Amino acid sequence: MQVTAQAGCLTGECQVRVGTIDIVATKTVDDWKCSVGRSITVLGERWTILILREALLGTTRFADFERYLGLPPDRLADRLATLVEYGVMTKESYQEPGQRRRPSYHLTPAGRELHLLIGVLQQWGDKNLPRPEGPTVVRKAGRTGRPVHVAFIDDLGYEVPADDVVTIPTGN
Amino acid sequence: MQVTAQAGCLTGECQVRVGTIDIVATKTVDDWKCSVGRSITVLGERWTILILREALLGTTRFADFERYLGLPPDRLADRLATLVEYGVMTKESYQEPGQRRRPSYHLTPAGRELHLLIGVLQQWGDKNLPRPEGPTVVRKAGRTGRPVHVAFIDDLGYEVPADDVVTIPTGN
Repeated sequence: MQVTAQAGCLTGECQVRVGTIDIVATKTVDDWKCSVGRSITVLGERWTILILREALLGTTRFADFERYLGLPPDRLADRLATLVEYGVMTKESYQEPGQRRRPSYHLTPAGRELHLLIGVLQQWGDKNLPRPEGPTVVRKAGRTGRPVHVAFIDDLGYEVPADDVVTIPTGN
Repeated sequence: MQVTAQAGCLTGECQVRVGTIDIVATKTVDDWKCSVGRSITVLGERWTILILREALLGTTRFADFERYLGLPPDRLADRLATLVEYGVMTKESYQEPGQRRRPSYHLTPAGRELHLLIGVLQQWGDKNLPRPEGPTVVRKAGRTGRPVHVAFIDDLGYEVPADDVVTIPTGN
């Protein structure tokens, strides 16, 4: 896979290396054949995962994302714009009495599917980078109250150990 | 959550914003209470996910990571060093006849667990950012040959829809 400079990169975060041959630029979704590359073009920017975590906890207002995450508003706006562009969130607005309309952001069904991604990162961190105090959250099934984890599962519904999962090229 | 400048940031990639109040620096693992933040400190740097994808496909040699991913060697070395520091990979070496020893990198059990993370990113991209040609890979159970996907599953082994999963603070 050859990385080449892009005329217009997705996020504007082109990485310039001084004293070497090239400019390594951010690729766009369609520069990737592999879905992992395509996904991280949309989801892999710094802060985006934390924005999604907050959104899955119910945050919708721009001002609340800004306050909870403590990131600069222009960076927050940039990340949210990418998520809207690729169908992860929709941009709406709300208005409190006597105030101007303000922006809010809402997960689409594709965005809500990313609960799995946040769940994997939490589960892996809980196990492999644990705090002495233990996890900050647990995940349960709302209907039954039973604890849940993220796993590979086959088409009959049986859990498959990650070590038994094989990756097969399709030739596409 | 307040972001403050760190004296020594984990990866050296401090983000300096010109003309605004502050320097937003990369946090270290122990700056985060939440395991999502802890995980992305280790896994969230640009290229790291693609390094893990290659490693899960069997790549071990530094020179092969460099060739397959097309990234600058000092950046590759930096990312691999972080993965070794946090127990995701081990650094070994190999030697071909008549040549000097060269470095290789091998996933630990904690690293192999990240198959789930790569699986989620692939699955989400296949569905939500599809290419006309279809997916580049499929995942199957090695033992049974059945197709697998990533899902929430409860402690009885039943799949739980992502929309039914609730996140409960522990107070830690």
